[in-house]
Amino acid sequence: MMDNSLSNPYVSTHHEPGKYETHDGIISPQGPLNILSKMEIAKLLDASQSGLYHLFRSCSLAVLNCGNYLDDGKELLERYPDFSIGLVQEERGIKLAIKNAPASAFVDGKMIKGISEHLFTVLRDVIYASGELQSSGKFDLVTTKGLTDAVFQMLRNAGMLVPGLDPNLVVCWGGHSISRGEYDYTKEVGYQLGLRGLDICTGCGPGAMKGPMKGATIGHAKQRIPGGRYIGITEPGIIAAEAPNPIVNQLTIMPDIEKRLEAFVRTGHGIIVFPGGAGTAEEILYILGILLHPENSDIPFPLIFTGPKNSADYFLRIHEFIGQTLGEKAQRLYRIIIDEPDTVAREMVAGIRQVREFRKHTDDAYYFNWQLRINEDFQQPFMPTHENMKNLALHKTQPDHLLAANLRRAFSGIVAGNVKEEGIRAIEEFGVFELDGDIEIMQPVDELLASFAAQNRMKLPGKAYHPCYKILKQV
Amino acid sequence: MMDNSLSNPYVSTHHEPGKYETHDGIISPQGPLNILSKMEIAKLLDASQSGLYHLFRSCSLAVLNCGNYLDDGKELLERYPDFSIGLVQEERGIKLAIKNAPASAFVDGKMIKGISEHLFTVLRDVIYASGELQSSGKFDLVTTKGLTDAVFQMLRNAGMLVPGLDPNLVVCWGGHSISRGEYDYTKEVGYQLGLRGLDICTGCGPGAMKGPMKGATIGHAKQRIPGGRYIGITEPGIIAAEAPNPIVNQLTIMPDIEKRLEAFVRTGHGIIVFPGGAGTAEEILYILGILLHPENSDIPFPLIFTGPKNSADYFLRIHEFIGQTLGEKAQRLYRIIIDEPDTVAREMVAGIRQVREFRKHTDDAYYFNWQLRINEDFQQPFMPTHENMKNLALHKTQPDHLLAANLRRAFSGIVAGNVKEEGIRAIEEFGVFELDGDIEIMQPVDELLASFAAQNRMKLPGKAYHPCYKILKQV
Amino acid sequence: MMDNSLSNPYVSTHHEPGKYETHDGIISPQGPLNILSKMEIAKLLDASQSGLYHLFRSCSLAVLNCGNYLDDGKELLERYPDFSIGLVQEERGIKLAIKNAPASAFVDGKMIKGISEHLFTVLRDVIYASGELQSSGKFDLVTTKGLTDAVFQMLRNAGMLVPGLDPNLVVCWGGHSISRGEYDYTKEVGYQLGLRGLDICTGCGPGAMKGPMKGATIGHAKQRIPGGRYIGITEPGIIAAEAPNPIVNQLTIMPDIEKRLEAFVRTGHGIIVFPGGAGTAEEILYILGILLHPENSDIPFPLIFTGPKNSADYFLRIHEFIGQTLGEKAQRLYRIIIDEPDTVAREMVAGIRQVREFRKHTDDAYYFNWQLRINEDFQQPFMPTHENMKNLALHKTQPDHLLAANLRRAFSGIVAGNVKEEGIRAIEEFGVFELDGDIEIMQPVDELLASFAAQNRMKLPGKAYHPCYKILKQV
Amino acid sequence: MMDNSLSNPYVSTHHEPGKYETHDGIISPQGPLNILSKMEIAKLLDASQSGLYHLFRSCSLAVLNCGNYLDDGKELLERYPDFSIGLVQEERGIKLAIKNAPASAFVDGKMIKGISEHLFTVLRDVIYASGELQSSGKFDLVTTKGLTDAVFQMLRNAGMLVPGLDPNLVVCWGGHSISRGEYDYTKEVGYQLGLRGLDICTGCGPGAMKGPMKGATIGHAKQRIPGGRYIGITEPGIIAAEAPNPIVNQLTIMPDIEKRLEAFVRTGHGIIVFPGGAGTAEEILYILGILLHPENSDIPFPLIFTGPKNSADYFLRIHEFIGQTLGEKAQRLYRIIIDEPDTVAREMVAGIRQVREFRKHTDDAYYFNWQLRINEDFQQPFMPTHENMKNLALHKTQPDHLLAANLRRAFSGIVAGNVKEEGIRAIEEFGVFELDGDIEIMQPVDELLASFAAQNRMKLPGKAYHPCYKILKQV
Repeated sequence: MMDNSLSNPYVSTHHEPGKYETHDGIISPQGPLNILSKMEIAKLLDASQSGLYHLFRSCSLAVLNCGNYLDDGKELLERYPDFSIGLVQEERGIKLAIKNAPASAFVDGKMIKGISEHLFTVLRDVIYASGELQSSGKFDLVTTKGLTDAVFQMLRNAGMLVPGLDPNLVVCWGGHSISRGEYDYTKEVGYQLGLRGLDICTGCGPGAMKGPMKGATIGHAKQRIPGGRYIGITEPGIIAAEAPNPIVNQLTIMPDIEKRLEAFVRTGHGIIVFPGGAGTAEEILYILGILLHPENSDIPFPLIFTGPKNSADYFLRIHEFIGQTLGEKAQRLYRIIIDEPDTVAREMVAGIRQVREFRKHTDDAYYFNWQLRINEDFQQPFMPTHENMKNLALHKTQPDHLLAANLRRAFSGIVAGNVKEEGIRAIEEFGVFELDGDIEIMQPVDELLASFAAQNRMKLPGKAYHPCYKILKQV
Repeated sequence: MMDNSLSNPYVSTHHEPGKYETHDGIISPQGPLNILSKMEIAKLLDASQSGLYHLFRSCSLAVLNCGNYLDDGKELLERYPDFSIGLVQEERGIKLAIKNAPASAFVDGKMIKGISEHLFTVLRDVIYASGELQSSGKFDLVTTKGLTDAVFQMLRNAGMLVPGLDPNLVVCWGGHSISRGEYDYTKEVGYQLGLRGLDICTGCGPGAMKGPMKGATIGHAKQRIPGGRYIGITEPGIIAAEAPNPIVNQLTIMPDIEKRLEAFVRTGHGIIVFPGGAGTAEEILYILGILLHPENSDIPFPLIFTGPKNSADYFLRIHEFIGQTLGEKAQRLYRIIIDEPDTVAREMVAGIRQVREFRKHTDDAYYFNWQLRINEDFQQPFMPTHENMKNLALHKTQPDHLLAANLRRAFSGIVAGNVKEEGIRAIEEFGVFELDGDIEIMQPVDELLASFAAQNRMKLPGKAYHPCYKILKQV
Repeated sequence: MMDNSLSNPYVSTHHEPGKYETHDGIISPQGPLNILSKMEIAKLLDASQSGLYHLFRSCSLAVLNCGNYLDDGKELLERYPDFSIGLVQEERGIKLAIKNAPASAFVDGKMIKGISEHLFTVLRDVIYASGELQSSGKFDLVTTKGLTDAVFQMLRNAGMLVPGLDPNLVVCWGGHSISRGEYDYTKEVGYQLGLRGLDICTGCGPGAMKGPMKGATIGHAKQRIPGGRYIGITEPGIIAAEAPNPIVNQLTIMPDIEKRLEAFVRTGHGIIVFPGGAGTAEEILYILGILLHPENSDIPFPLIFTGPKNSADYFLRIHEFIGQTLGEKAQRLYRIIIDEPDTVAREMVAGIRQVREFRKHTDDAYYFNWQLRINEDFQQPFMPTHENMKNLALHKTQPDHLLAANLRRAFSGIVAGNVKEEGIRAIEEFGVFELDGDIEIMQPVDELLASFAAQNRMKLPGKAYHPCYKILKQV
Repeated sequence: MMDNSLSNPYVSTHHEPGKYETHDGIISPQGPLNILSKMEIAKLLDASQSGLYHLFRSCSLAVLNCGNYLDDGKELLERYPDFSIGLVQEERGIKLAIKNAPASAFVDGKMIKGISEHLFTVLRDVIYASGELQSSGKFDLVTTKGLTDAVFQMLRNAGMLVPGLDPNLVVCWGGHSISRGEYDYTKEVGYQLGLRGLDICTGCGPGAMKGPMKGATIGHAKQRIPGGRYIGITEPGIIAAEAPNPIVNQLTIMPDIEKRLEAFVRTGHGIIVFPGGAGTAEEILYILGILLHPENSDIPFPLIFTGPKNSADYFLRIHEFIGQTLGEKAQRLYRIIIDEPDTVAREMVAGIRQVREFRKHTDDAYYFNWQLRINEDFQQPFMPTHENMKNLALHKTQPDHLLAANLRRAFSGIVAGNVKEEGIRAIEEFGVFELDGDIEIMQPVDELLASFAAQNRMKLPGKAYHPCYKILKQV
């Protein structure tokens, strides 16, 4: 059952002064994640496809760095320049050979199981995305149907779609950088959800993405629910800044932020939004933009904004912003509940019951929300180049759901500039992004972002925030 | 646990005089086999792709007909002209709507679970083979490496490759039409294998494919081995003649006979051959041809021919035939054991122990024999047209393993002419196959086939055998 | 998973000419059966309590001899005079040290798991019966309530009482010495029961006690029912003659035949009787005597007599005998079904459905039939001494259920004289039993017993039957 | 999986102003805890045995009150005067009918599963202790051997003794009333233990008994250890003050404090002591007294005292007290580690490794420490009457382990006077306990108790502490 060996012949530690402590290790998986074909291995290791290896290496490093929160993908890679990860074929399957990995992933020289599980998840998803989505002609990545099909296949391959279960998956969104009081509140909400048998899905980083899972773990333990699911959905750009907590027991890495967001709304049965920064604003705009689509008006979708008493102002601010930009119709799509974790949980239970009735009635799957119409504006990957950012159509002369789509892109770009490796490098090279639009849109955007910065929601505490954007307001 | 309801609102029975009794039903799966994307469903039901639906329907009918042994794929389809199978999307996943299915698949109006599981397996494999292997550009089906990769991916998708298990999978080959004494002997061998913790893999029809599984089930029960694997590997052409017994708890349908044979030898850790007819001869020639390849000379592969006392002559006949065609070297690759089930099991345990040592030593996977060299002559699908059959190179002026490959093709064609729908139709249209070759090869072939026919090994008892071939001997 | 080692350092074999082959071994259990207190161990090994050790040794030997059917408890002990079994305390629990055990319990030097499980069951039940029932003052073994409570506690301690399960336990009674055709029929009935999700409980010897379990194993495998229960209930006197088949996965040894019979009728939800000899007649008289009790007249209890076509006469004979002795009212308590295994299974399903409704309606436990009134005439152990046998009240001037009780005792004594160690010794010493009674009772008894002997139902084939009784008829 | 119904027909709520909110409910168990015989039920409900029902009721109420921490057994009973609990026999087993139970045990009208599990545990242990230990003549409760046997049988019946597991059970002792910082520290230690695969056993109340379990739950989740054991061992007197947290997944109620303490040291493989009050001092004296026994000098037993930086003084105080009373030899039996949770866990892993080696070497069970000599002074129940308290031999003219035994009794009495129902009533009636002894013993005792009171360790915060004792010092 347990091997308490303090020393492990396969592991050696390096700790030079002035460098981050690292470990080496040979990692073998528990589950069936380690069956790769010779061709898949060859491809991953093929020097001519160095992009694939780079992706695998950086996602692996992010997973291994979990616990040492660091919301800067570039810095992470620079901290561990000698980190490497390789594949070893053995008689019982593939193993991973790791060198110079962050020491925090190990306990007494042995890697934490949850983390080693995540490493094999990275391997699985990187190989699948490369083999199925990109190389093969199998997928149609142009049409809405084709893109949704790709999301479905990624999730199915990751074992996320479980038939036969009653709807019970609550997506929790919110910031990675929140106050202690807010964090404790997310734990309490998670606990109340767990007591009611609900499972948790988050973006799998720290803060509001970790608290609900910790709380639900205790709730599930008290209710003797053995198979509680703590699902993390991430993507290569964000994983470094939001490394999956080892409590996450189902992890998947979607190829880009748009597929990640689609995965959230198609697998979750309801969404709770905790306080957060630009990323949380992106998520709010995404779900509102979708629910505003006329074809979705009859589909039940519980959406709750909640936080402790101290965060009441925060949500008032968000509520105002939504009113100013998307209007009252959008404001009717969610409910704000302040400082009542059990009310949140009860409302979510009631909302999910409606979802269940609706799906049953319309013969839609419990495990995948096929009926939700997601416009291709929300599906096509948005590349936050300086040019694309500047050209965003941020004005009111378009349907609300399209305005939401463009606002979503704007916030997505700001997240990239704040924490993603590529985004940070672009800002370093070309200066801050310029955002241009009608003053009645840009004014609220400006104020919202300023308030996030003032509340330390843009970066982890202890780091000064240097905005990566400039607002140009057109009168 | 059990719902004893004798009446089931979803099931209705039809039994008109002069027709085979049938049932209708709505079938829902247990496991996660029923998660299909909208696109996959659309494709299966798309009239323009009627080939896919035809394949799905005929394999499903074969699975449902299990128990009513009938070794004639064409006759089966004609018996149930009104049989249909459709997909129903519901909130808990896909269900199958079945009309006019053979009544024997039902007990008191409810489908036997093992059979309903097989139906969803058919669905999974037909969709995978179509989506991955055929439509997409993902696979290279020309090179040896590419073909092996395709076999690997099919098996992985079917959940056949389980890492972490010690080698313990015994492939049992032999005829579907054997005597009662031979059948009882295969059960006894299976029992002895089961007592020793070995799992069974067969072609999943009646006779020598069913007996070892029944025996092993009892052996496993006595040894309290809960997860005994009874693996069936079939292909669309043969499934009608060799419907999987419901004991089979892992089924896969490979796209063609060559991939099916490769699946056997790459996943099994040893092979036992019981008496059989042309199909068994095909299998023997396949494994001998591979083991004769010079690159395979160091790879341990336990291969045992066995039967009850009465079958001793049969194996002498086979042994002679191998000596006459492939020579003494081939004869040294197997061991013949008569009427000693426990010796067979003990030898197999010893042989598999060597396989284990070898794989461990060479870091090859336990669950897939990557090292075995399989020449593309054994991989490329052989279409048994009249022309291809006539042009087979059946002479000794070629390396032994290539002669084995061609002999294998000859027997494969005869199996098709005997029991496969397409083969039977071809014989009906164009007359019997002609086989042409050196007399020193053709004479033994002729005699062997004649002896099979004389022993009723070509067709199920009660049916006269009309040869589907003619031997032309060149002096 | 599997350790194929042919050689095992813990096992050594002895095979002297003229003696039965034996093995030694150290056996460790799988489950939690091996937690004994120091006091329990001391008591078992205490020389002054040699009766307890003798009981443990002889039951263990019977379990180990399984497969070598031998219906003579005395002969068994004489065959293995050097057999011994001891306890070894180790850090992971108790182990059993075995010397000179029948070799058939081992496969390649390792004991069959099912058999080693049974050995620990023997240990558990012998210790429990001694500690709880006999030594302690805890139980009242005089009143009906107290005796039933003891049966309940034995069964609960043995893990036989599983709450939450729907009623599905079919008790199968019948002879250990039956023809091949009858045996195959019991397998077929077991298969049909297994297909319908029913579990099996028998007296756990060969013949009609083994066939239904084998059949149900295959039925359960086809229906993917993983936890099928194959329950054996035996007692120290009979276990040697009816060694539990290793398929039995829940075994219990009741202290005497009366508690064993009460265990059958209180845990089973219906009873099927196959052909048999004196023991089967005892069982039939037991259940009829109980069901004839006026207080039980409203309690549903499915009871079916069945056999293949050739056994039709046998049941006609039994039916006549019941009519002659207990009358028409008794004949209405069962149904005779000849040669229709699926009808038997369907009727049993329907009957058990009624049992379920009744228990639900009356709030009686599914796992223990508390309501059935069992008269103390059926509960108090009957010692078949020559005197007791002679004094049995075998006449019609008593209520039917009391006549049934006395007839039951008569047949019980004959079973003892035929196969139990003590009974055989008594006959050797004092000559045959004398049975005395009214001619209208004794005549049918005489004829029935004669027909059993003529049909080889009294002893295993190959042994001449020497009656152990003499009928004295009073006019 | 989950039934989200907010309304439950079986539950009704009562909330009158000025009273504690209560619920009614019908509770059915998950596991096999609900199989009772008619006799057991009758005994529990028999008015003439009202003591048994009173015990069952008060323990049940304590379990239900979990969460509303209240360290006063008398007050608890007075808060819920209308609380009642009854048995209902149904077809699937026994259910519990509850009236006027604390509302906090319910979530949305449904009882928390962990709590309902505990209720059935109470039922099991109350019935076992009554049926086996007290009524029957089975046990010898006078000799050391007999008392240990009783402890063993209680634990075996409770499923606490699991053979085959490697030693990994850490007993955590400490106060129910500790500071937030101390509580967080116990969680962190539990987390570090959990990360290393260790399981937790505590007295199952709040504070230091709950923190380690919460921490270990997260540690086990990260290491993917599914069957983590969180064992609570309590007794009827203390359960009201230390209601088991629902995380506890194995609970047992020993008949008295002495058997509870013996259960800790015989099942645990090491002990960690966190800060606490009189109860913790009792526990420390108990283990030191046993380890001081000359026959135990070679038995490894890891014992660590630990707390956060702020608690350093506390342990210095304890260390001094031990030096003053039991001497330097006793001080060498433990190690004090301040503010290093991971060191604590690593030391415990190393210590348990030694335990394992020792048990293996001496063939002692892993699941029960048979070898530890526990003097009957530590086994015989001590009744803290005023007379017994006054007569305690608290002087140095006796062996250290006997002095430890008497000091243990003194502290045990003080705990009773502080929190146990009977003790509180005795103090109310007869005034405070008087403790009499040598000044060199009584002085340190006095000072230690005073420091506990000063640090609020005697009662939960918010309650003034009124000492229940008076120290009489003899010069």
